[in-house]
Amino acid sequence: MELEKAIKERRSIRKYHKRDIPNSVIEELLELARYAPSSMNGQPWHFIVIKKESTKKQLAAIKNRYCPEEKRMYKADFMTDAALIIVVCVDKEKSYDREIENGILASSIILLGAHSRGLGSVYLSAYSADEPGISNEIRQILGIPSSVYPISIIPMGYPDEKLKPKELRPLTNLIHHERF
Amino acid sequence: MELEKAIKERRSIRKYHKRDIPNSVIEELLELARYAPSSMNGQPWHFIVIKKESTKKQLAAIKNRYCPEEKRMYKADFMTDAALIIVVCVDKEKSYDREIENGILASSIILLGAHSRGLGSVYLSAYSADEPGISNEIRQILGIPSSVYPISIIPMGYPDEKLKPKELRPLTNLIHHERF
Repeated sequence: MELEKAIKERRSIRKYHKRDIPNSVIEELLELARYAPSSMNGQPWHFIVIKKESTKKQLAAIKNRYCPEEKRMYKADFMTDAALIIVVCVDKEKSYDREIENGILASSIILLGAHSRGLGSVYLSAYSADEPGISNEIRQILGIPSSVYPISIIPMGYPDEKLKPKELRPLTNLIHHERF
Repeated sequence: MELEKAIKERRSIRKYHKRDIPNSVIEELLELARYAPSSMNGQPWHFIVIKKESTKKQLAAIKNRYCPEEKRMYKADFMTDAALIIVVCVDKEKSYDREIENGILASSIILLGAHSRGLGSVYLSAYSADEPGISNEIRQILGIPSSVYPISIIPMGYPDEKLKPKELRPLTNLIHHERF
């Protein structure tokens, strides 16, 4: 798929058909994610692919439990219906103090790569700067060592919803020349 | 350009030809960046496009001054030779506590969009969790209000270097099934 089309068409998808994603497709996606830039080319990523129903439920419960009040309209229950969930983690030792950047830049590629393969996905955070509980609970469920940071949670599946194109803020409100 | 080609070919470019980038190309790029996902669809972005030599020098000086010891092999002086620098910022009020995510996800699109237009760029951070000085100095130089967070700094220009393909860590070392 064309880059521009992938970027413009991609939406955050939270409803999925009951249909498996072939392992070969997941490998292609994670293969691609490795090409993300990383600080000092540390390539610090770990990708955990979760298909087990009970684990998906546990992750959804954590996301619901730590959901801030203003985001409660987006319940995390839908995660259980995803064909799979990818948890993107980074190894602190290979991250040069840029765990978050490295994790998000790879996640961004996963979102685009998924869309270009007809898959829907949505970016969810796996940590909170103010609340270490969320990362720690995810670590515990998935057996992630304390030196590895979970950064994002990406539920994925064949889309069972079609969203209207987003209304975007006009570029003139966002762009500044030389100074803010 | 094909999405896969853009992702696989893109490299972090730090040497640029002395050649301007047409404004129309910059607008196309920032137009694209608006399609990034954002928390609660807040679209909190501000993009500052800097072409002035003196501002580029000031930004390079800040990056050099705050550069941690282990990254000193990458001097920021090259920023002065970029045709322009885009500083990606986010409005805290529209970010739902996800300033960093929102900023990086848009930055990722700028890197890919730039490469697909024959432009080289590189991702640099505009903040440090442990050192508020860097963001504050950038704010001061660019007149950014305190409610707006600078997240990344993206120097850009027509590439004057050709890098060898990256050696990637094998996927088998990065992928985990069900648990870490």
